[in-house]
Amino acid sequence: MLETETRPASAKDSAGDSADAATLGAAIPFDRHRLDRLMDEAGIDVMLVTSKHNIRYMLGGHRAQFFSYMDAMGLSRYLPVLVYPKGHPDKAAYIAHKLERHQLAVRQFWVPDMRAVSSGSVDAMEFALDLVRRLGFAEGRIGVEKPFLPMDAAEALRTGLPNAKIVEGLIVLERLRALKSAEELAKLGEASERIIDSMLAVIARFGAGSTKREIAEALQREEASRGLDFEYCLITAGSSLNRAPSDQPWQEGEPLSLDSGGNYEGYIGDLTRMAVLGEPDSELQDLLAKVDEIQQLAFRMIAPGRPGGEVFAAAQEALHRLPEHNHMHFVAHGMGMISHEAPRLPTNGEMPYPPTDAERPLEPGMVLSVETTLQHPRRGFIKLEDTVAVTPGGHEILGVRGRGWNRGGTEAR
Amino acid sequence: MLETETRPASAKDSAGDSADAATLGAAIPFDRHRLDRLMDEAGIDVMLVTSKHNIRYMLGGHRAQFFSYMDAMGLSRYLPVLVYPKGHPDKAAYIAHKLERHQLAVRQFWVPDMRAVSSGSVDAMEFALDLVRRLGFAEGRIGVEKPFLPMDAAEALRTGLPNAKIVEGLIVLERLRALKSAEELAKLGEASERIIDSMLAVIARFGAGSTKREIAEALQREEASRGLDFEYCLITAGSSLNRAPSDQPWQEGEPLSLDSGGNYEGYIGDLTRMAVLGEPDSELQDLLAKVDEIQQLAFRMIAPGRPGGEVFAAAQEALHRLPEHNHMHFVAHGMGMISHEAPRLPTNGEMPYPPTDAERPLEPGMVLSVETTLQHPRRGFIKLEDTVAVTPGGHEILGVRGRGWNRGGTEAR
Repeated sequence: MLETETRPASAKDSAGDSADAATLGAAIPFDRHRLDRLMDEAGIDVMLVTSKHNIRYMLGGHRAQFFSYMDAMGLSRYLPVLVYPKGHPDKAAYIAHKLERHQLAVRQFWVPDMRAVSSGSVDAMEFALDLVRRLGFAEGRIGVEKPFLPMDAAEALRTGLPNAKIVEGLIVLERLRALKSAEELAKLGEASERIIDSMLAVIARFGAGSTKREIAEALQREEASRGLDFEYCLITAGSSLNRAPSDQPWQEGEPLSLDSGGNYEGYIGDLTRMAVLGEPDSELQDLLAKVDEIQQLAFRMIAPGRPGGEVFAAAQEALHRLPEHNHMHFVAHGMGMISHEAPRLPTNGEMPYPPTDAERPLEPGMVLSVETTLQHPRRGFIKLEDTVAVTPGGHEILGVRGRGWNRGGTEAR
Repeated sequence: MLETETRPASAKDSAGDSADAATLGAAIPFDRHRLDRLMDEAGIDVMLVTSKHNIRYMLGGHRAQFFSYMDAMGLSRYLPVLVYPKGHPDKAAYIAHKLERHQLAVRQFWVPDMRAVSSGSVDAMEFALDLVRRLGFAEGRIGVEKPFLPMDAAEALRTGLPNAKIVEGLIVLERLRALKSAEELAKLGEASERIIDSMLAVIARFGAGSTKREIAEALQREEASRGLDFEYCLITAGSSLNRAPSDQPWQEGEPLSLDSGGNYEGYIGDLTRMAVLGEPDSELQDLLAKVDEIQQLAFRMIAPGRPGGEVFAAAQEALHRLPEHNHMHFVAHGMGMISHEAPRLPTNGEMPYPPTDAERPLEPGMVLSVETTLQHPRRGFIKLEDTVAVTPGGHEILGVRGRGWNRGGTEAR
């Protein structure tokens, strides 16, 4: 098939190594020395990256459009494989699906060997194994992302390289992503702002009698119309604590919570805002003020050099002084390309991973999602969730609008 | 957490077994006797369903909204597991993520044991294995979907049930899905119509100088505004055969092809339509007429009882009589919840699966995507793609509008 278009790669993240850039055609969009060091510490010779989000990260935003929403095709599935030998970006290779070839043709990448050759998970892995062998790592230590490597490809790996040592590489890649560049922070900010715009638009448009399902579907369309890939909308109305879209109507005087994730060029916005139909009574005002008080305290604690565990401890202590503390919940977690990532702060134990970053100091470029939830038995679900970046001077909140009681239905027909 | 809402399940597909339905609270939305028979033929005692599309199929449309767009969370990933013992829907169980619990609370399901307990792939599998053991299949034959079972969960399976036999179950589930119910056909029709509406809206709105990227992004928003989950947009303009969105502008007199997939409640619409800026000259008219001629011939061949291979052979033969045949390409493939599924007709060899259904007669309820492509070296990419259901009396085309040269920019500012 003819590939008639070419387009120069845009300027990449300043984290790229410009010496490599000259050699390889486009700048490496991540700190490759950091990756090499993390691989070395984890005892990995060559990494086989197979998750969509890490592929997108390492290829400067690339995402196979045909498989953006679904992986399944035929009797197999989409499986991209980026082969990265430690210390040798000049020998990296990307095994793409055949349907990616047109996308690869209209853009430049730092990876010298880009092949749109696979049609499923097993042949993709076999192409990758052939490269691993040629790199001399047939008996080496191979880093993989186990949750993102399907069983059939894993079997091909074990069969094809019976003497290799398979090592979990997920944490290496997550640790690499933990420090965001200015460009990444801008995308996270953009995601947050667009979600706030979408929420405020929906809140204004829907009034008494609208169902949670209608409101959630409208939010999805508002986000899509602003160029976001919608991820989810958790929604409550009135005194119910159920957060699924349903036929429950929003009634006069009731609070409404919207907790939505939306994706802007691979980076997640994840915010919660509150609305009410009519004017909030003094109790509602008081309850949201308490939630905000915990949020503000946590914000003030976020600064470079402070161990992440101290943010949690301070918020937890303040929360326990409130009379509603039995119904309240605080959590802060790293976020970026996925909704829970490093840094991993302590929690009340309900998170499915250990608080590995409790003792480590926060660093500029880290991003936290900060959430305070009040599940009030009589007044319902009241929550604020905000995104906060650690900056050299302290912190920056990405998306500050709409944090009070937003009035519903002001533009309803 | 309080679950204060309940909502009665809506009437389900008539394929459900009403005797079971009375017992289990909601009708089974698929032909469970067919599933039992297919499992029996494949030598499977109990199936562990883990792909999102098969979960959605077997649970009557359920899709965990939090994980609709992404699977990654924390250091693991979302992994739903439906445990289905052959012949015993009354002993089936669904292992859901903790974040699915609110969705499960507002809807009824046929599965008697619904548990929102997992937080990642390994604990999900361990919950499932515990059930498999209690069902007495610790040494049984376990069907899995290898491309949709991550390596870490597969290791938990091998470790937890060392004496079980692991069998590929993907084809069983695909075969089950091959015959669509009236409700499924309606959803496929709806997906097709909404894609056509979206394409016609975009073609009318964009004119000379609009880039392929702008047009593809606008199509995404049009589909989202019509309640579709956008999947992809392959696009060409002018004489280029590159189908990726790019900065290439659409120019006066040039053809434009739009090939887009969009998902309506789990069912894929996948159509290609053509547009031109200005009036199509006689050569363009002639070329599209030839493409349509092959499509129409294929449509006429589609009828119950006819082996799928004959559809391909007839189209192939007609195509070879055309002077442009060196640049032309015909393919027909099953579609429904995923973009290439049973029935599997013959192809020119470029499809990543064998033509297993070449000899089998087409059956009412099967659905084919029919595609004729002309990659003209001078005039560019000219294609029609349509969705055709096999009916008791012959066939029905889902979405017949816009199959000629649609005029671009008629509503442009």
